[in-house]
Amino acid sequence: MEKAEKIRKGDIRTATRLIRNIEDNIPEAKSTIKNLFPFTGNARVIGLTGAPGAGKSTLIDSLIALYRDRDKKVGALLVDPTSPFTGGAILGDRIRLQRHAVDPDVFVRSLATRGALGGLAKAAGDAVHVMDAMGKDVIFVETVGTGQQEVEIMNHVHTVIVVLVPGMGDSVQAIKAGILEVADIFVINKAEREGTGKLYQELMYMLNMVDSFPGEWRPPVIMVGNLFEKEIFEEGIKELSQKIDSHYRNLVEKDLLGDRVRHKATAELNEALQSSILSPILEKLISEGEFDNLVDKLLKKETDPYTCADEIAKKYLRKRPLKGVAG
Amino acid sequence: MEKAEKIRKGDIRTATRLIRNIEDNIPEAKSTIKNLFPFTGNARVIGLTGAPGAGKSTLIDSLIALYRDRDKKVGALLVDPTSPFTGGAILGDRIRLQRHAVDPDVFVRSLATRGALGGLAKAAGDAVHVMDAMGKDVIFVETVGTGQQEVEIMNHVHTVIVVLVPGMGDSVQAIKAGILEVADIFVINKAEREGTGKLYQELMYMLNMVDSFPGEWRPPVIMVGNLFEKEIFEEGIKELSQKIDSHYRNLVEKDLLGDRVRHKATAELNEALQSSILSPILEKLISEGEFDNLVDKLLKKETDPYTCADEIAKKYLRKRPLKGVAG
Repeated sequence: MEKAEKIRKGDIRTATRLIRNIEDNIPEAKSTIKNLFPFTGNARVIGLTGAPGAGKSTLIDSLIALYRDRDKKVGALLVDPTSPFTGGAILGDRIRLQRHAVDPDVFVRSLATRGALGGLAKAAGDAVHVMDAMGKDVIFVETVGTGQQEVEIMNHVHTVIVVLVPGMGDSVQAIKAGILEVADIFVINKAEREGTGKLYQELMYMLNMVDSFPGEWRPPVIMVGNLFEKEIFEEGIKELSQKIDSHYRNLVEKDLLGDRVRHKATAELNEALQSSILSPILEKLISEGEFDNLVDKLLKKETDPYTCADEIAKKYLRKRPLKGVAG
Repeated sequence: MEKAEKIRKGDIRTATRLIRNIEDNIPEAKSTIKNLFPFTGNARVIGLTGAPGAGKSTLIDSLIALYRDRDKKVGALLVDPTSPFTGGAILGDRIRLQRHAVDPDVFVRSLATRGALGGLAKAAGDAVHVMDAMGKDVIFVETVGTGQQEVEIMNHVHTVIVVLVPGMGDSVQAIKAGILEVADIFVINKAEREGTGKLYQELMYMLNMVDSFPGEWRPPVIMVGNLFEKEIFEEGIKELSQKIDSHYRNLVEKDLLGDRVRHKATAELNEALQSSILSPILEKLISEGEFDNLVDKLLKKETDPYTCADEIAKKYLRKRPLKGVAG
C-alpha cells in the first residue's frame, strides 16, 4: 500500500518505476495497480493517433502548454508499437516534449513493445491509471498508427483525435482500418501543404456517407497549419482544444460519458482475463516443454490444433463453460 | 467425414460453404477442419501484403496465370480486415481475378472481418487448410496492410511478399510495424512512377542496417513496372516468380523449412487455445449477464480488473497453472 500512497502523492520516481514494471510485465506491479484503482476515473484521457511524421508530439506539446495555462495537471503517455526498423520516433518525441521537463505538474512517460505480442494496450491502460491516480487532470495518450493495437489502445481514452497530413498517402484509403470509426476529431496537420483541400474533401465525403453519429457528434475536421507562423499555428491549437472540450461536454450532455467509460472498463476486463487465464496456461505449457511436444505432434499430423486445444482446455478448466463450444 | 471427403475431391460448393462457416465462426466447422488436417501440409503458401491500391491483386492475377502455365493448381485467399469506411477493396479484387473464374483449377475466396475482433488470422489459417486439402499446389494469401493482424495472418505462409508503391507515403517509415521484419521479398510495384529510386534506396539502406539474415536470405527487391507495356510488366512478374521459387529452395537447402512450418504450427496452436479456452469462458460470462455485472462493479470501483480476472480464473481453472502468476 505504501507504493500506492506515494504515487497518489505524486511521487515521480515511484510512478516511473511502476510504469517500467508494467511495461516489463512484472507480476507485482499488479498489486499496486489494484491498490490505485479506487483512486482512478478522475482524469480526462485524450488519445492522438496518426502515422509517423504526422506531427503528433508537436500538437501534444502545444496542448500541454495550453492546459498548463489553465492550471491543469497534465500527463502524457507516448506509446510506440513500432519495430526496431522504424523505431526511434519515441526518442525524438521525448526530446520534443522536453520544454515541459522542468514543470513538476507535467509527467511524460513512453511505453514500447517489449517481446510479447499484444499486452501493449493493457500496459497503456494501466499506465493511464497510474497517472490518473497521481492526480493528473488531463492525460494525453499518443500512439503511432499500427492498426489493431492502436484501436485497442484507443479503448482507454475518452476522446480520440486522428492526425492526418496532406500528401502522406494517396488518400484517406491509406488510413488504417478501424481507426476512422473511433475518431472523434480529425486534425489536418501541416495544413499549409499542398493536398490539404483534397484531403479535406475526402474526409467530408467519407463523413457524409455516415447516416447517423452516436450522440449526434459529427467528428469535426480541424486545420492546424504553419508551425512557422506562430499565430496561425496557435489559432489551430486553440480551436482543437475547444473541440476537445466540446466533445467531452457532448459526452456528458448526451449521457454518453457512461457508455464511453463502460467501454473502457470492458476493454480492461477483457485484457485482464487474457493475462489471468490464458497467459499462465501458456507459460506453464511452455516451461514444461509440453507446448513443444504438441507442436511436434501437429507437425507429424498425429493430432490437429483443435483437438490439442480441447485437451488442454479439459485439463485446465474446472468444467466446460459452454457445452459444445469447446468440443 | 463425408464433407471432408468431398472437399478432398475438390468439391467447390462444399469448400465454399466450409470457408463461409469458418468466417462466421460456426462451431461445427471445427470438426471438418479436424478431419481435413491430416491431408494438409502439401501446398506452398505465399503471402502478399501492402497498402490498399498497391496493386496486389494485379500481381496475384499474373502469378496465377504463370503458375497455371506450369500446370499447378492454385488457390487464392483475399483477406480484408478493413472497415466499412475503407472497405470495398475486396469486391474490386474479386472482379480483377475473374478471368480465372472459369478455370476449375483456380479457387478464389475472400474473407472479411465480421464482428468479433481478432480471430481473423485463425480463420485465414483454417481457410488455407481447406484449399491445401483440396489439393491446391500453390495458395496465395492477400492481406491489406493493417499492422498486427496482418503480421498474424502472415504466420500462416511460407513466403511473405511486401508490395510497395512509390509515392504512397513519405518513406519506408510509413510501413506498418512488424511487417518489415517478416518480409522475404520486396516488390516495388508501379515502378515507372516517380519516387521509385528513392524508395529503392531507402529499402537498401534499411536492409544494409541488418547484421545477418536468417538462412543468409537477404530479401531481394523486385521492380515490377508499367502494366501498360506488357513486356516490361511480364518480365517483372517472371523475376518475382523466380525469387519466390528460390526463396522456397533456400528454405529447403538451409534446413529452414522445418522452422517455418514449426512457426506456422505454433501460431495455430496459440489461436486454437484462445478459441477453446478463453472464448467459451467469455461467452458464458456474457450470456449469464455476469460480464456486465463485473463491469458495473468496476465502474463503481467496488473491485478492479485484476481481482475480477483472478476470481474468474479461480472459478474456471481446475488448478492454478503457475503459482503467483495469476494471483
